[in-house]
Amino acid sequence: MKDVSKLVGFRPSIKIVDATLRDGGLVNDFRFPKGFEKVLYEASVKAGIDIMEFGYKADKDIFDVNKFGPCKFCDEDFIRSIVGEKESDMKIAVMADVGRCNYKRDFIEKSNSAIDFVRVACYLKEVITAIDVIEDCTKKGYETSCNIMAISNVQESDLKAGLELIGQSPVNVIYIVDSYGSIYPEEMARVCDIFGNFAAKYNKKLGIHAHDNQKLAFANTIECVGDGVDYLDATYMGMGRGAGNCSIEALIGFLHNPKYQMYHVLKFIEEQMVPLKESGIVWGYDTQYLLTGLLNQHPRTAISYTKENRKDILNYYSEITSQE
Amino acid sequence: MKDVSKLVGFRPSIKIVDATLRDGGLVNDFRFPKGFEKVLYEASVKAGIDIMEFGYKADKDIFDVNKFGPCKFCDEDFIRSIVGEKESDMKIAVMADVGRCNYKRDFIEKSNSAIDFVRVACYLKEVITAIDVIEDCTKKGYETSCNIMAISNVQESDLKAGLELIGQSPVNVIYIVDSYGSIYPEEMARVCDIFGNFAAKYNKKLGIHAHDNQKLAFANTIECVGDGVDYLDATYMGMGRGAGNCSIEALIGFLHNPKYQMYHVLKFIEEQMVPLKESGIVWGYDTQYLLTGLLNQHPRTAISYTKENRKDILNYYSEITSQE
Repeated sequence: MKDVSKLVGFRPSIKIVDATLRDGGLVNDFRFPKGFEKVLYEASVKAGIDIMEFGYKADKDIFDVNKFGPCKFCDEDFIRSIVGEKESDMKIAVMADVGRCNYKRDFIEKSNSAIDFVRVACYLKEVITAIDVIEDCTKKGYETSCNIMAISNVQESDLKAGLELIGQSPVNVIYIVDSYGSIYPEEMARVCDIFGNFAAKYNKKLGIHAHDNQKLAFANTIECVGDGVDYLDATYMGMGRGAGNCSIEALIGFLHNPKYQMYHVLKFIEEQMVPLKESGIVWGYDTQYLLTGLLNQHPRTAISYTKENRKDILNYYSEITSQE
Repeated sequence: MKDVSKLVGFRPSIKIVDATLRDGGLVNDFRFPKGFEKVLYEASVKAGIDIMEFGYKADKDIFDVNKFGPCKFCDEDFIRSIVGEKESDMKIAVMADVGRCNYKRDFIEKSNSAIDFVRVACYLKEVITAIDVIEDCTKKGYETSCNIMAISNVQESDLKAGLELIGQSPVNVIYIVDSYGSIYPEEMARVCDIFGNFAAKYNKKLGIHAHDNQKLAFANTIECVGDGVDYLDATYMGMGRGAGNCSIEALIGFLHNPKYQMYHVLKFIEEQMVPLKESGIVWGYDTQYLLTGLLNQHPRTAISYTKENRKDILNYYSEITSQE
């Protein structure tokens, strides 16, 4: 049972990472309404958000720039057009997706960059490449995290071997990523225990990125808070791929840190997020996401089910549980 | 940290209580589509639900029968028209709301009744009256529970004094009710500890009724499972007052008891619940419910906000936090 003081007080080492543009961008191909990114930046500064993720640093040799909004590529010019001379202490992050970024070419020296923090996303089997990205970005002066995706689909022994390698790298933060939203809070406590041992051994911080497939994104995130995790990914109104993420507004209410300002979060929700949702952009919990979460599957079938506006949940359940 | 075996195995003493007609009925004044209650009954029997709550036993001297559907009053004839001779072992429950039912008049001897289980809802200050209902219904042959509402708004010392009195009554089950959806899972663990001490002392079972204001209804319910609570309230698609309840479909996925059949739950969702939602009946999580949950307030202002289709969440936040 967690100590009552953990709820009444707050831990200053905890940081909220706003992933709205990055995970939210997966919903709309990063095509946000005109001016959205700038208003979001200003809202997050005022709300006291610690780190704002602007999107992916995707390789333009692989992805067509005409098919996505600017947050897919996070050019320096684009970020600079929003943050200017960066007069707040909110850090700017981008995600480098292993195998889908040209990190040696596209990350310039940090001293010339608007970016502070590079989040390196990989599957466990790609951990060696991830470490190469981390080493390259560290040399260039960036803080880094390693975000190991889909950990619910790997063996504990493999995970531990991977964490040993990541621990020896210069990475600052190791992320727990519940890509399929399949992990229950009591399992998350055990995952935190495994990650926590390596974090302690190698003096790393831990992070959590949760998905809401089983409506557990917030519950899993606050479970992690109680288990020593400091970097908390969240998005406005939980906007994110499929069922979405932990919401910033719920998290701020839980954390009690006086630096976080609910007013500015609600203002952004009223002025930008609710109109975005009403414009027809769809994300959030629904029965089809529960089922992929429950089955520990990638939500891509549930995303298709949603896009096609299907209502035949029984057929769908039969499809995703088919043994053929 | 909870033992891993609790997730892999299952506890046969756990019972799912379907509260769709009762808590869901608060959303639509118990006016369900024609035939809904009967199809629900048949679905729940097939799905392996342990107890089905049909609604309230409301006093017709207080409530106008023309203003509500039949589940508000749960006449014997109405229940009998649905359950017939009750050929399944699923138990039938109704709720007796302290101060709003005429229990001495309206509960007949169990031997002549279609009802098995009387759930007595009260605020802590009404516990003496609740015990009178429990004693009356026990004498008539019913199983009973005492559902203490809004425990997040009472002092621990008062709660313990109330639990001592309830413990000495003939009640079978004592319910934890998070009426405002304000309790976090780590607080729920402490609540379970308090309730558990009295349950052990007086040989009572425990139950949980959660609300989804902070999207924690499912998380809090499974936290309680790990803490020894056996009676779990849930509804199809989480249908219930305001932000709604823990969903049956999520719970069945978690519990692993082979008696529960997801197929029949999903069939009911596809054929009845989705059309009900599409007909314009509104329930479920939204930002306004998060705020009342966070502030430990009754959700009535959020329900009004929802009904009036308001979008001015900043004004609303100002109203519910006003110091005037």
